[in-house]
Amino acid sequence: MSKLPDIRTNFAEWYQEVLVQAEVIDASPTRGCFVIRPYGYALWENIQKELDKRIKELGAQNAYFPLLIPKSFLEREAKHVEGFSPELAVVTIGGGKQLEEPLVVRPTSETIIYSMFARWITSWRDLPLAVNQWANVVRWEMRTRPFVRSLEFLWQEGHTAHRTREEAVEMVMRALNVYKEVYENILAVPAIPGIKTESERFAGADSTYCVEGLMPDGKALQMATSHLLAHSFPESFDVRYQDADGSMRVPYCTSWGMTTRSVGAVIMTHGDEQGLVMPPLAAPVQVVLIPIYKTAEERSTLCEKLEQVRRELSDAGIRVMLDANEATTPGAKFFHWELRGVPVRVEMGPKDLASDQVVVVNRIERDKAQKKTMVAHGQAKAFVLNLLSTIQSNLLSNARTRMQSQWYQAEKLAEFGPQLDQNNGLYQTGWCGKAECEASVKTYKGTVRCILQEHNHKTCLHCSSASKSDILVAKAY
Amino acid sequence: MSKLPDIRTNFAEWYQEVLVQAEVIDASPTRGCFVIRPYGYALWENIQKELDKRIKELGAQNAYFPLLIPKSFLEREAKHVEGFSPELAVVTIGGGKQLEEPLVVRPTSETIIYSMFARWITSWRDLPLAVNQWANVVRWEMRTRPFVRSLEFLWQEGHTAHRTREEAVEMVMRALNVYKEVYENILAVPAIPGIKTESERFAGADSTYCVEGLMPDGKALQMATSHLLAHSFPESFDVRYQDADGSMRVPYCTSWGMTTRSVGAVIMTHGDEQGLVMPPLAAPVQVVLIPIYKTAEERSTLCEKLEQVRRELSDAGIRVMLDANEATTPGAKFFHWELRGVPVRVEMGPKDLASDQVVVVNRIERDKAQKKTMVAHGQAKAFVLNLLSTIQSNLLSNARTRMQSQWYQAEKLAEFGPQLDQNNGLYQTGWCGKAECEASVKTYKGTVRCILQEHNHKTCLHCSSASKSDILVAKAY
Repeated sequence: MSKLPDIRTNFAEWYQEVLVQAEVIDASPTRGCFVIRPYGYALWENIQKELDKRIKELGAQNAYFPLLIPKSFLEREAKHVEGFSPELAVVTIGGGKQLEEPLVVRPTSETIIYSMFARWITSWRDLPLAVNQWANVVRWEMRTRPFVRSLEFLWQEGHTAHRTREEAVEMVMRALNVYKEVYENILAVPAIPGIKTESERFAGADSTYCVEGLMPDGKALQMATSHLLAHSFPESFDVRYQDADGSMRVPYCTSWGMTTRSVGAVIMTHGDEQGLVMPPLAAPVQVVLIPIYKTAEERSTLCEKLEQVRRELSDAGIRVMLDANEATTPGAKFFHWELRGVPVRVEMGPKDLASDQVVVVNRIERDKAQKKTMVAHGQAKAFVLNLLSTIQSNLLSNARTRMQSQWYQAEKLAEFGPQLDQNNGLYQTGWCGKAECEASVKTYKGTVRCILQEHNHKTCLHCSSASKSDILVAKAY
Repeated sequence: MSKLPDIRTNFAEWYQEVLVQAEVIDASPTRGCFVIRPYGYALWENIQKELDKRIKELGAQNAYFPLLIPKSFLEREAKHVEGFSPELAVVTIGGGKQLEEPLVVRPTSETIIYSMFARWITSWRDLPLAVNQWANVVRWEMRTRPFVRSLEFLWQEGHTAHRTREEAVEMVMRALNVYKEVYENILAVPAIPGIKTESERFAGADSTYCVEGLMPDGKALQMATSHLLAHSFPESFDVRYQDADGSMRVPYCTSWGMTTRSVGAVIMTHGDEQGLVMPPLAAPVQVVLIPIYKTAEERSTLCEKLEQVRRELSDAGIRVMLDANEATTPGAKFFHWELRGVPVRVEMGPKDLASDQVVVVNRIERDKAQKKTMVAHGQAKAFVLNLLSTIQSNLLSNARTRMQSQWYQAEKLAEFGPQLDQNNGLYQTGWCGKAECEASVKTYKGTVRCILQEHNHKTCLHCSSASKSDILVAKAY
C-alpha cells in the first residue's frame, strides 16, 4: 500500500489509485473493462435499491430484454445507427459458425424494446406503458476511465409510451427529478438539471434532458439523462395504437438511464487525501467498531461489549461492523477504514470500558478538537444516528459550496476561455442557438454541457447577437 | 386469448402457451432468446431476493466481472474449453475494427474470476475468499425452450477459494443446501440432491453436485449445480498462496449457480388447466381484491372499502393489489388473475359490504364447497395469512406426492426401459460405475440424472455386476 497521489495537484491519478487501494475495482484482462470488487459493488447495490424503489413509484415495472440484438434492428432508426455504429461490439460467430446476420451486443435497448412495444401496444387502453431494465451494456470506447467511461457498464434504462406529448414530457421530467433527488439526497452530489444541445443529444431523441455534476477538478460529469424520443423510435418500429375515437396513432415515447458512473461521481465528489468518503445513506458500511487493547483478556471483554453496541446500532437500522481482526493493529484498522471512507468510527479501550463510554470519530471533520467525541454508551445510538445525518447533509453542502466556487457567470468566450483552458470550472453564459457558436468553445477544450432553464445572459458568448438561453460551458469527462 | 392446450395430454404446448398468455414472456427477434415481461421478471426478482440473502449468509459478497473474456483465457483450462467451445458467442468486431484477439461472451465466469483470484490471494490470510455475481450468460444452444434452455439466461454464480479440500467440499454442500432449501421452502418444488456422473460433470470440475426436479410430464430438470473445482482452475490460472508454514500452496476452489431456469421449474411444477399457480412466498401478487358491482355508486363504496382491506393486508406484509379496473367485468378479472396464478382472491359485493364480510377464494382448491369462504372483515387478515401459508405447504406436498408417484424402484434396464421410453418417470436403480452401463440408458432416451447418497440396489442396471451406487435415470430437459 503506497501513499495516495496528492488529490489537489494530481486528481486523475488520485482517482485511479484510490479505486484500487480501497478495493473498489481492479484491472481486468479485458481491455477497457474493470472488475467491480465487493466494496464497490455494495455501493452500487445501495444506489440500485434507492433508484429501483423510486422507479417503481414512477409506475415502471422491471423486465428483461435480450443482450444480443440483430444488427438490422439498429439500422431501422437512421440517426440511432449513425450515432452508435462506431461504438458497437459485434458477435459474428455463434456455436462455431459464422452467423448469417451479425448480432450487436446492446449499447442501449431502444431498438429491441420498441420492437416489443409494437406487439404490446394496440389500444389506448395499453397506455401508458412503462418498463425498466437493469442490465449491462457495451460501448466500444477507446479512452476509458473506471466508472466514468468503460467498454461495459451497468445501468437501468426506463422506456415508456404515452398517448400525448405532454404526458411524455412529464415522464421525462419526473425521471430527471428522480435522478436529481437520488444524487442530492442519497449520494450528496449536487446535480444541475438542463437540456442538451442538438449536438450532444441522444442519437434518435427529440430532446435530451440531463443532470450534470461538477467534479472537484472543475470538470463536468454527465450524471444521468432522460430523453423525449417522441415519435422517432415508435415510427421506426411501427408502434401504433387505436385511440378511443377509433383512429390509429403513434405513441409518444421516452427513455432514461442512470449508470455505474454514479459510483465514480460519489468517489470523485467526496474523496479526500485520506481516501474515499462514503455518504452515509449509500455507504456499504456506515459505522465501524474498533476495540483498542493490549492483552488478550482486554480484547475479549472489549469485543464482547462492542458486540453489544454492534447489535444496538444494527437494530436501529445502521450498517455497522465490528473489526475484531486479531492480525492487525488499531492504527492499521483506522487507516484501512478511513481509506474506505466509512463515515463513523467508534473506538473503545479499557478505560472507556471502565467508564461505559465510547469514542465516536467523524471521518469528515478536519478540526482535531471536534473530530472525536466521548459518548456514554447509553447515548451512543442516538449520537451516531445524529452524526450520520449531520455528515450526510454536510457532504452535500460542502459539495455545493465547492461547486459554487467554481461556477462563474461569464459573458465573452474570448475573456473566460483562457481560464477554462487553464483552470477548468463551470461557465454560465448566453447563447444565440447557432451550432458554430456552440462549437467555438472547443478552442478552449470546452463543451456546452447543457441549456439552463434560467435566462440571465443577454448576448451570445461568441457572436454577440441576442442570447436565446443560458448555457453551461465546461470541460467534460 | 385462446383456450390453453390440455396440460395432461399436451404439456409442452401448455407450457409455451401459458407463458405467453399469462404475460410471463414474449418471443424476441433474437433467435433462441425471449423477453422476460414484468410479471415473469417479478417472480425472478423474488427468487433473487431469497437467494441473495442466503448467499450473503454463506459469506459470499457480490461483485461484477466483465461480460467479454479474451478467448485465450478459456483455452487455459483444457477440459473447460473443450466443453464450452461449441456453445460460444464470439465478438470479432469492436468499434468497427476486426479484433486482434476475439472476445467470448461469458458462458460462465470461472476463467476471468480465477485470473483475478490469482491477484487477490497471496497469503493464507486471504482465505477463504467467496464472491458471487448476478449476471447474464450466453450459451449457443440450438434447441431452446423458455427458461429451460435459451441462448441467454440470467443467474448467480458463486466462486470460492479455501485452504483445504474439506472446507471446499463443505462449501459445495452448503451452497447445494441453499438451493434445495429455496426450491422446497420458497418455490414449493421438491429438489433431489445428488452427484453427477463423470459424463455429466461441469467442464473442468472435480465433481459436480446437483439438485434435480421431476416435472409433471415425468421429465427431469437439473435445477442447480454446485461444483468442487478443487485445483483445476486455480492451477490453470496460477492461483497460489503462502501458507502459515511458509510453503506455497494452491487453494481448493468451488463454483455454484442457480438460474432463471428456476422460473420454468415453478411454472411447470404448479401450473394447472387454468394457468399458472404461484407459490405464495414467491408470488409477484399474493392476493388480488375484486369488487363486484352493478352501479357506479356500488363500485365507489366497494372500492373504498376494499382499499381499506388492501391497506390492512399490505400493512401485514402481504403483496396485495386491488383490481378496480372499470373496463373489465368481474368474470374477466377472475379469469385474468387465475391465469396468472395469484394464490388468493378476495371478492366483495354489495351484500358482503352490508354484512361487513368478504369472500376469500383459494386458487388451488378443487372442491367447490371448500374453494370459497365467507370471512368477517375483522378476520380477513388472519384468514388470508393462514390460507397463504396453507397453500404454500399444500403446493409442496402435492408436488412431492406427484413426484413419488412417478419415482420407481427398478432393477434391469431391459425391464423398465420401455416404460421410461413410453411414459417417462424417474427410475432408481443400481450402477456398477462403468461408462458403457451409463450409456446403455440412451437406448430408451434416458440419461443418468445423478448418483444418490442412499444405496439400495445391489446389481447394475445393465451388466448385472455388483452395483456401486444407486442412480436416478430419467429423460431430461
